[in-house]
Amino acid sequence: MVKVFPAAVFQSFETKVDRSRIPSRVAALRQALGQAKIDAFLVPRADAHRDESVPASEARLAYISGFTGSAGLAIVGLTKAGLFVDSRYTLQAPAQTDQKLFRVYEAPPASLAAEIGRFVPKGGRVGYDPWLHTSGEVRELEAKLDGRAVLVPTDNLVDRIWHDRPAPPASPIEILGDNRAGRATSAKLEELRDSLAASGADAAVLTLPESICWLFNIRGRDTPNTPFVLGYAIVPRRGRPTLFLDAKRSDPSLDEQLGAVAQIAESRNLMRALGRLGKAGRRVLLDPQSAPAAVSAALAGSGAVLVEKRDPILLPKSKKNAAEIGGMREAHKLDGVALAKFLAWFDGEAPNGRLTEIDVVTALEAFRREESSCIDASFDTIAGAGPDGAIVHYRVTEETDRGLAPGELMLVDSGAQYLSGTTDITRTLSTGPVTAEQKDRYTRVLKGMIGIAMARFPKGTSGAQLDILARQHLWQAGVTYNHGTGHGVGAFLSVHEGPIGISTRYPTPFEAGMIVSDEPGYYKAGEYGIRIENLVMVVESAVGDGKFLEFETLTLAPIDTRPIEISLLSAEERDWLNAYHARVLKEIGPLVKGGVLSWLRQATRPR
Amino acid sequence: MVKVFPAAVFQSFETKVDRSRIPSRVAALRQALGQAKIDAFLVPRADAHRDESVPASEARLAYISGFTGSAGLAIVGLTKAGLFVDSRYTLQAPAQTDQKLFRVYEAPPASLAAEIGRFVPKGGRVGYDPWLHTSGEVRELEAKLDGRAVLVPTDNLVDRIWHDRPAPPASPIEILGDNRAGRATSAKLEELRDSLAASGADAAVLTLPESICWLFNIRGRDTPNTPFVLGYAIVPRRGRPTLFLDAKRSDPSLDEQLGAVAQIAESRNLMRALGRLGKAGRRVLLDPQSAPAAVSAALAGSGAVLVEKRDPILLPKSKKNAAEIGGMREAHKLDGVALAKFLAWFDGEAPNGRLTEIDVVTALEAFRREESSCIDASFDTIAGAGPDGAIVHYRVTEETDRGLAPGELMLVDSGAQYLSGTTDITRTLSTGPVTAEQKDRYTRVLKGMIGIAMARFPKGTSGAQLDILARQHLWQAGVTYNHGTGHGVGAFLSVHEGPIGISTRYPTPFEAGMIVSDEPGYYKAGEYGIRIENLVMVVESAVGDGKFLEFETLTLAPIDTRPIEISLLSAEERDWLNAYHARVLKEIGPLVKGGVLSWLRQATRPR
Repeated sequence: MVKVFPAAVFQSFETKVDRSRIPSRVAALRQALGQAKIDAFLVPRADAHRDESVPASEARLAYISGFTGSAGLAIVGLTKAGLFVDSRYTLQAPAQTDQKLFRVYEAPPASLAAEIGRFVPKGGRVGYDPWLHTSGEVRELEAKLDGRAVLVPTDNLVDRIWHDRPAPPASPIEILGDNRAGRATSAKLEELRDSLAASGADAAVLTLPESICWLFNIRGRDTPNTPFVLGYAIVPRRGRPTLFLDAKRSDPSLDEQLGAVAQIAESRNLMRALGRLGKAGRRVLLDPQSAPAAVSAALAGSGAVLVEKRDPILLPKSKKNAAEIGGMREAHKLDGVALAKFLAWFDGEAPNGRLTEIDVVTALEAFRREESSCIDASFDTIAGAGPDGAIVHYRVTEETDRGLAPGELMLVDSGAQYLSGTTDITRTLSTGPVTAEQKDRYTRVLKGMIGIAMARFPKGTSGAQLDILARQHLWQAGVTYNHGTGHGVGAFLSVHEGPIGISTRYPTPFEAGMIVSDEPGYYKAGEYGIRIENLVMVVESAVGDGKFLEFETLTLAPIDTRPIEISLLSAEERDWLNAYHARVLKEIGPLVKGGVLSWLRQATRPR
Repeated sequence: MVKVFPAAVFQSFETKVDRSRIPSRVAALRQALGQAKIDAFLVPRADAHRDESVPASEARLAYISGFTGSAGLAIVGLTKAGLFVDSRYTLQAPAQTDQKLFRVYEAPPASLAAEIGRFVPKGGRVGYDPWLHTSGEVRELEAKLDGRAVLVPTDNLVDRIWHDRPAPPASPIEILGDNRAGRATSAKLEELRDSLAASGADAAVLTLPESICWLFNIRGRDTPNTPFVLGYAIVPRRGRPTLFLDAKRSDPSLDEQLGAVAQIAESRNLMRALGRLGKAGRRVLLDPQSAPAAVSAALAGSGAVLVEKRDPILLPKSKKNAAEIGGMREAHKLDGVALAKFLAWFDGEAPNGRLTEIDVVTALEAFRREESSCIDASFDTIAGAGPDGAIVHYRVTEETDRGLAPGELMLVDSGAQYLSGTTDITRTLSTGPVTAEQKDRYTRVLKGMIGIAMARFPKGTSGAQLDILARQHLWQAGVTYNHGTGHGVGAFLSVHEGPIGISTRYPTPFEAGMIVSDEPGYYKAGEYGIRIENLVMVVESAVGDGKFLEFETLTLAPIDTRPIEISLLSAEERDWLNAYHARVLKEIGPLVKGGVLSWLRQATRPR
């Protein structure tokens, strides 16, 4: 009997845009170009807060081009238009756009510079919304354009023509109690002021919602997937900070509670405040990698000396305190329960050969929503059957939905937002006998995942150094994977956060309390994909006289042992796997029952 | 019957300086300070060519302070003097210097800035010889001094007072035939000119003898340990290069042979040539990390535009061609024979408890010198008995010579210059039963060494990434070593060469033909030291469809298997060790006989 799940609410499988309306929108935008006396306009997949998932009101790229991917840049000129996307969207971008209107480039946004002659005349004026590009991006693009075109900041021309644009989000603000935040805003402000003093800055302007939500111990529902309140903050070295909120919230208790640590204002008053901030010629810290060009231009124009540095909140935020750690452990227990239910269900259903990718996403979401504190997915679930598993950031739609044939591998990368914390887990599931090659690759991926999980390292060691521990066994076989091994994860915040991670791009040393994913993979295009992912937390090591760190695994869900080539595991790796499964049974077993419990016992038995 | 070896000629065990004459030298230098109207003078352990081993005529630091280490900087002020050395010389520097005259700092030379007030009045004039400091060093020191003292280039005040200073070296120049160089100077010049064009430079000034000797396919005996000819070169993008030699060589065939590719001049004419080079306002490439400040000042002063880049010879030189690879393999066979003789002798003698460190160095040198093409040691042998093994760069003198008690570990790190190539090898030798801790540490060091030797990696991978493969097993036990895992090695050139190596300091990707050392270690201060080192060469890998690289081991000498805890080795590591020993027996066995052969058979039997 097939179980019937409620429809997914966290994730949609529609191709969201009605493509028939794109031509008239592009025509309207071209008319606006003429009125604004510019030759082209840039439409990035971005909002002012560098959100990974943007609110509907910010989905301008999908509105104008039809492309719904999570990164990309369109340029609309008077006669020609182009769309720049990365390799994740090689298939999706051409499928979603009208290629008679938009030429699709598989190239990073800055590659636009080399192609600019196609869209505007020599020396032409390219308009952009300075709230949607960082000052660093504008500088880089200007340098690459090298005079062949001029960048002109303007109001957003898409907004001018987007008459049924949704209202900006104004979700209720939740103030975290000390039991969840673990550290008062006053203490966090004190640390921030110390770091401003060390940078010789008189104030900082914060524009990343993850930094603002963490600093003020608030959460909201302004964006999908991440419990953000959108806004800005100005924190002077001396005096009260001001918290600017993008939308007016009608919560009388807000001013009272937040008012104790900050002055509350609306974002539309930000520019005026920035003007005042600069007038005294003060030194203002700003992150050129995340602050909108509009903010840095306003500061520079009003006489401030810009101190360009990484957002000073990112490092302290990445070191979770005891309350955050407790919450993250709790969230992983809740997620482990959902995963056990899901995996047991999948093992029962998959052999029948009737499941599709959308069924898998829907079921997993339904099992997670059985826990009422699960408020969202932390990102759209990647559920790739067979060859779709080889598409690293695959996101199923009704058009691409694929049936899972018995014997194929199923890659499921998903995560959730619980009120207690954020999860991210990947399992690759067998649905029958696997080939010798699949066994070999699956085992090498697993060895790499265990290699990170078991690592011990002296303080000062970075993810750039550890990365090879996850790759070395694949490298022995002459194969690798073209993505990082791990990214930082927030506590009831972004599922992707800096400044740490596991790849050569992360030289920042690990410190206790940091949480990263550990997710090596192997992808054979057109055939199958394998990825195994746990979240791990940096803790003091039992060895090395207080000078060493190691990882504690947070994720609690069985790893499919059927595709393992046991003879390839070292004794230590096998011990790790058995100890991990014993722990999963011990922690999750008491929270499930019946068929799920028997399945869990079976799935976690020693190998 | 104890074998009697001829006295060592490559290495001296004397404390070379007569300390009784130091006070009068310092007094004379102080008088010279007054004449030159400066408040202090800097005396680095350096010559104009960044030689690791300097000719006797350049040993100014030893002359003025008594300190004979291979790195350090003295400052002699009107009343006070100081000596800055690194952690290798914590013991040696205080022992060799009169601490009433010189205060010893265990700190890098640039730390002088923080202490400058001790030696000169505020704003005082600190003289330096611009031939002995790079422009990069001068810039860094000036920035750190921040006006508290002024750096003043001057002639060398030590040379003014050093009346019995040895003559500069003028060894015969050897021109390598194509069978040894493998690539004509004309072809190397063509590649260099391409790289000048890519850098937009009109000419390069070369000051590193390793670059000049490689480019012009010449070798000499100007310095100990490395077969250098000392000089400079100017290579214009168009036209003939000029090779400036530090001393006139009386070899009539030289002009004829070298004259085909370069104009020969004497170094005393260099400054005039630099003046001409700059006059046309041309762009001149110079390496600020190695070029003397005098050279860059002459160029800048004469109107040249400086293009500051890494010496453009370093990268091509590091990729050995077929002839160089053949030579290096040959050198390692010759060295393997000497090592087999030495190790067999050591195993016979050590249990008697009569050996000292100097005996070990002398014997090893004698066995190497039995091969007539061995012309020098590639560095002073590090032979550390028991606790001396824990001193990473220990160099025995008559005063520190230590008897080797049976049961102690003996660390021997040595290398040779054969006409065919350069070697560098470390073995840690047991002389009886070792403790369980020593076994554990020895095995973890060996596992790390094998981890590098067995590594496979995609093209583009650097030594910064591989480093952890050598450390991970020690890290599991909460210990590490405070030096890099490996350094580049030249072909009949420097035993330490850039730009590659194995440590976080080396982000340059490996390419086929590069040779590096693989030498993890473990050091327990006051007790024992362990290091195991082979040289390995980057080769195309059998796996990965032409996209992967791996290492071929060059060094051919048994690794002591008695201190190995076999249960700690993985099956792959044990296979590697047995295959390595089988190869050593196969390649070295036919070249030795009698007792050495029986010992070799025994030492290489499978474990």
